[in-house]
Amino acid sequence: MSAEQRIKNLGLVLPPVSAPAGNYATAVRSGNLLFISGKAPLPMDGKPPKGKLGREYSTTEGYVLARSACLDLIAVIKDKLGSLDEVAQVVELHGSINAVPEFEEHAKVLDGASDLLAEIFGPAGIHARSVIGVSSLRNGVPLTLKATIEVKLG
Amino acid sequence: MSAEQRIKNLGLVLPPVSAPAGNYATAVRSGNLLFISGKAPLPMDGKPPKGKLGREYSTTEGYVLARSACLDLIAVIKDKLGSLDEVAQVVELHGSINAVPEFEEHAKVLDGASDLLAEIFGPAGIHARSVIGVSSLRNGVPLTLKATIEVKLG
Amino acid sequence: MSAEQRIKNLGLVLPPVSAPAGNYATAVRSGNLLFISGKAPLPMDGKPPKGKLGREYSTTEGYVLARSACLDLIAVIKDKLGSLDEVAQVVELHGSINAVPEFEEHAKVLDGASDLLAEIFGPAGIHARSVIGVSSLRNGVPLTLKATIEVKLG
Repeated sequence: MSAEQRIKNLGLVLPPVSAPAGNYATAVRSGNLLFISGKAPLPMDGKPPKGKLGREYSTTEGYVLARSACLDLIAVIKDKLGSLDEVAQVVELHGSINAVPEFEEHAKVLDGASDLLAEIFGPAGIHARSVIGVSSLRNGVPLTLKATIEVKLG
Repeated sequence: MSAEQRIKNLGLVLPPVSAPAGNYATAVRSGNLLFISGKAPLPMDGKPPKGKLGREYSTTEGYVLARSACLDLIAVIKDKLGSLDEVAQVVELHGSINAVPEFEEHAKVLDGASDLLAEIFGPAGIHARSVIGVSSLRNGVPLTLKATIEVKLG
Repeated sequence: MSAEQRIKNLGLVLPPVSAPAGNYATAVRSGNLLFISGKAPLPMDGKPPKGKLGREYSTTEGYVLARSACLDLIAVIKDKLGSLDEVAQVVELHGSINAVPEFEEHAKVLDGASDLLAEIFGPAGIHARSVIGVSSLRNGVPLTLKATIEVKLG
């Protein structure tokens, strides 16, 4: 099954691509690699999520927030490539979790993004991954994701 | 206009390339990608800047510090490639801001680097970007930048 | 001398590859680049190390911990490529140090990994590098490393 079919079957609707937070592009392609800029979770109830894991947000809520930010990443892929079926492989995913110093469940939070990539892209969605806990993020968002994607060659 | 002409018109002088802080190289090339090591702001009044955004440094000062670290990145590019005109595209820029936990203006700080890349490289300077707030950096520097550059093919 | 010979001469034994901490792969190859997922120090006395640099661990202990995590990275390379002699170049190493906000010796800690790469791979082990101090990591591990490797072409 193709990624476009899977996303339809899952009933997922991609959001409009969010604007860059500064003087940069949402993604840059070099050869057959697409480098995607850092993305935060989508607005909920009209407001961008704000707060830290282990204080304002639980690990379970963090999972949902990571899934949300990943949906924005995927919207960028669709916007840049025209179709999700142009993805050969999700190469790398890096997550930065805005958390209190005692937080330890970064892996469970980031699985919200990794699970979504696997659901949509199948084996091509299984990526190399790293995750860190940071003390602050722009506008106080609870996490950001960035990714590198391999595009199918013409 | 070429990058070399633009940097001359801007009256910018590239600093000597700073030495690595440990057992590694300032940059490594693989294929037509140049991966540049983390760089901190240049010394001011003979001393390397030290302190955190939101405590020792304001956002406006952070913008200047990001521009300064970016000048060191660009000096590495010139050193490795011989000429800035060999840059096909600035692919990716990643910034780590040494900040207090309440800091939220990471994007404004990093624009100091992004704006400089756009001024010097034009459209080829518009990159994918990510930025995080970290709780500590080597020698207490206020920020570090790393970048990936696509080099023109022979 | 080859990397396989050097590791034998050093008397180093590679550990079994540690399992991913979530829904992802230990490494993904794209073209001739191998992207390796974040790795923590190996268990000591049967327990995974836990704690922060500048509190539970000194810089000297951190050097040993970085060397340990790097050994896990190298085990992944061996597992994915069959032989360490397939490495053309260690391209990039990124270290995240779980540290107290006053910590400043990130470079000395990360040299534990960089020195090992140089010992095993010689000039092909000299990489681009970046290091940050983070406020938390999964399961409270003291540091993680990720790397990008260029593989020899068939």
